[in-house]
Amino acid sequence: MIHGGDIYTEGLLKGRELLDYSSNINPLGLPKGFSDNIGEALKNAVRYPDIKYRELIRNIKDYTGVEKGDVILGNGAAEVIDLSISCFKNILIVVPSFVEYELDAKKWGSNIEYSYLSPKMEINYEDIIKKLSKMQALIIGNPNNPNGSIINKKDFHEILEFCEKEGKTIIIDEAFIEFTGNLEDSFINYTENYRCLFIIRAITKFFAMPGVRFGYGISSDEKLTKAIAEKQNPWNINCFAEIAVKYSLNDKEYIKKSLQWVKEERKFLLAELNKIQCIKNIFPTRANFILCKLDNVNEEQVYNFCIKQGIIIRKAHNFKGLDQSFIRLAIKDRVSNEKLLKVLKGINISNKRID
Amino acid sequence: MIHGGDIYTEGLLKGRELLDYSSNINPLGLPKGFSDNIGEALKNAVRYPDIKYRELIRNIKDYTGVEKGDVILGNGAAEVIDLSISCFKNILIVVPSFVEYELDAKKWGSNIEYSYLSPKMEINYEDIIKKLSKMQALIIGNPNNPNGSIINKKDFHEILEFCEKEGKTIIIDEAFIEFTGNLEDSFINYTENYRCLFIIRAITKFFAMPGVRFGYGISSDEKLTKAIAEKQNPWNINCFAEIAVKYSLNDKEYIKKSLQWVKEERKFLLAELNKIQCIKNIFPTRANFILCKLDNVNEEQVYNFCIKQGIIIRKAHNFKGLDQSFIRLAIKDRVSNEKLLKVLKGINISNKRID
Repeated sequence: MIHGGDIYTEGLLKGRELLDYSSNINPLGLPKGFSDNIGEALKNAVRYPDIKYRELIRNIKDYTGVEKGDVILGNGAAEVIDLSISCFKNILIVVPSFVEYELDAKKWGSNIEYSYLSPKMEINYEDIIKKLSKMQALIIGNPNNPNGSIINKKDFHEILEFCEKEGKTIIIDEAFIEFTGNLEDSFINYTENYRCLFIIRAITKFFAMPGVRFGYGISSDEKLTKAIAEKQNPWNINCFAEIAVKYSLNDKEYIKKSLQWVKEERKFLLAELNKIQCIKNIFPTRANFILCKLDNVNEEQVYNFCIKQGIIIRKAHNFKGLDQSFIRLAIKDRVSNEKLLKVLKGINISNKRID
Repeated sequence: MIHGGDIYTEGLLKGRELLDYSSNINPLGLPKGFSDNIGEALKNAVRYPDIKYRELIRNIKDYTGVEKGDVILGNGAAEVIDLSISCFKNILIVVPSFVEYELDAKKWGSNIEYSYLSPKMEINYEDIIKKLSKMQALIIGNPNNPNGSIINKKDFHEILEFCEKEGKTIIIDEAFIEFTGNLEDSFINYTENYRCLFIIRAITKFFAMPGVRFGYGISSDEKLTKAIAEKQNPWNINCFAEIAVKYSLNDKEYIKKSLQWVKEERKFLLAELNKIQCIKNIFPTRANFILCKLDNVNEEQVYNFCIKQGIIIRKAHNFKGLDQSFIRLAIKDRVSNEKLLKVLKGINISNKRID
């Protein structure tokens, strides 16, 4: 498995519920507005969606506050990432990061250059600008997966100006942006002034609906958005995603509660993970997941230990630049987090009680 | 608009319900099993689907009875059509047919050759086999859209053997196959013995859920299915489609009622359309739509006349091989069909009362 979220192989397909710390979904569940209005989606299901998705695009614009530019709609952010990457013959990928960036680039035959985060998981802005001179595009997560770092706008300014001037494209994957609790961290409003930007968002993580499949991209680079749109199939967004957007993005109560939860639990879990013996160190995060460097155990051992006790974690070795001494943990609700901590505490290195 | 189903521009976006004769959806609405179990889909929405969709594939195999071979899952049949066509440098398209075949082939830079239906809208099997010698693949609808003809298995046999022997691929779009009322019309079971076949199906039309977005392809040509799968994005099927498949495809009561409806209404509408003054002739159909050749009026005039009275029809000039003297009409429930007939009767050619 190259992704988190496989609660099936060792879990559901064997009739067993696993506590999923391998994918990073808001534990508050579906916004009530969506479930309450599911009847509207069922009513719509019997007809084709608007092939131009005019109401859906209107709702996205209202939510983001971005009026200028085009909205690309995707069957999950995965489609938007894939098609945006497909437009470039070569691309600079900041790594470690979401593994699909590299898989997509390879699929489309794009040449890849990498800019590695520092051992402290910090963005190397000088390295990015240096390498960008030979590349058409850059893709970077904000916050970045798997470590949760966000882009420092001051440090990024030079890159932004350079790309705008040189006609290069910056793809910023903001699938987790809402979790930072500060919308100023986002670059989405910059798309109105910087044609070089292509910002990708999703409702998957913050609005807790990975099963619904909906993501979007915003850019005022018409040439790029047209090239992407031409590659898309008609009616690529299902009617449930339309209703989910309509009744979730404006749910202020849900958003407020979610921000309160992530702030508290991130603080709690970071502090408690610091006390766990098998974890050497954790990396600062603004997202709803935590990258951990293990101490004297490897990901496989921790994974096996946890799954026996009903918890699935994300082994991190297939993130480029990481190895088997890393794991990624989601941040969930307090009860679950305490269960996780209890299990992790059971991993006693000195006594070799692993496995 | 290049497709039917635009009930938005002149309809919903202006707060007006149109009777949609431009897209071909079973008027019986959603199978009850799907709506009854929507709670299960909502429960699943908060987690990623199984990236391998094991249960979904199991359900498709149970429905089709095809065990051997691979199942390709698509975000609507549109995705499956698109990706299967993408695998060929050149393709023979039987036309007039679903316009996406040609659009997809052009998008992927495939060379296109056409085999035209006869003026009576009959398949020219000799022409197909002759032209196939220079082509890698063939795509044909069964039933074919927009006329509703089905493939004669006896006449098609030579083509099948030729393609199997020569390593060519036959893509058969069976999105409307259930409406024929005879599953013997399908080629889906042939996939177990003929590697050259790639059969595309959907739940869109017969199970009345275009908004859900789900289609599939079946083939035992592993090289082809692998090539398609490699182009797909992860989690491309939403959780509502999974539940729709789980609780609809085995709904015997729904299937029985639907077959009864289409048999009766097809007979009724064919007979009644024959009496309409502005329709010169209609073409035999085994599907849930009827291609009509107009008499002394063009599609635009009929479209405008109908839309004023709340009915939207499919102008057919953009089906390759047809012109502005054709329209396509869905077959709906009796009440709607009578309303349509009443409107069409109002088109009085001699008195020039059009518009």
